[in-house]
Amino acid sequence: MVDTIKVSAKSRSTAVAGAIAGVIREHKRADVQAIGAGAVNQTVKAIAIARGYLERDGLDIVCMPAFVEVDVGGEERTAIKFAVEVSRTFTPILPPVPEPPPAPPE
Amino acid sequence: MVDTIKVSAKSRSTAVAGAIAGVIREHKRADVQAIGAGAVNQTVKAIAIARGYLERDGLDIVCMPAFVEVDVGGEERTAIKFAVEVSRTFTPILPPVPEPPPAPPE
Repeated sequence: MVDTIKVSAKSRSTAVAGAIAGVIREHKRADVQAIGAGAVNQTVKAIAIARGYLERDGLDIVCMPAFVEVDVGGEERTAIKFAVEVSRTFTPILPPVPEPPPAPPE
Repeated sequence: MVDTIKVSAKSRSTAVAGAIAGVIREHKRADVQAIGAGAVNQTVKAIAIARGYLERDGLDIVCMPAFVEVDVGGEERTAIKFAVEVSRTFTPILPPVPEPPPAPPE
């Protein structure tokens, strides 16, 4: 089973996109979890960015959001879990480009 | 071409879900547009809810978010456009639920 990628409102969308792309390349699917509007927004942006990264691998992705109840420090919270999956493979037109290195800590 | 469903942070997610389900039943795809974290959050919740509505029609959906530039009152804004599509059809296990009858006159 693949670990769930947990996103907060403060997560950088490009960093999350890189994580999603990495998991998708290896497992062909990824689960991403967000609690709250800010985190959901960062996740959606990350999925849009990851699609661009994976295009160069000949992978197209789709996602399906669902409500899940999760335990956060003993309290039950409603999260959104995005199941991200490869929808099709194709021959990439563009050569692969290296992804940007992780940003230094702020 | 199908009209784009535009969602704001104040949109009710169940109302948006109903609109998405209606367009999907007719056209097998829907475009949903949101600007800002609140609107993106309402859209994601609506897609999760619409999936439940469409389950009774034997339709499963997926979505793919993308960045788009849109003109809002003469200003260019970055929106997220969600392309929602039918991913598979199946025989529903649950019978369709009738819509509630019209309320009696008061």
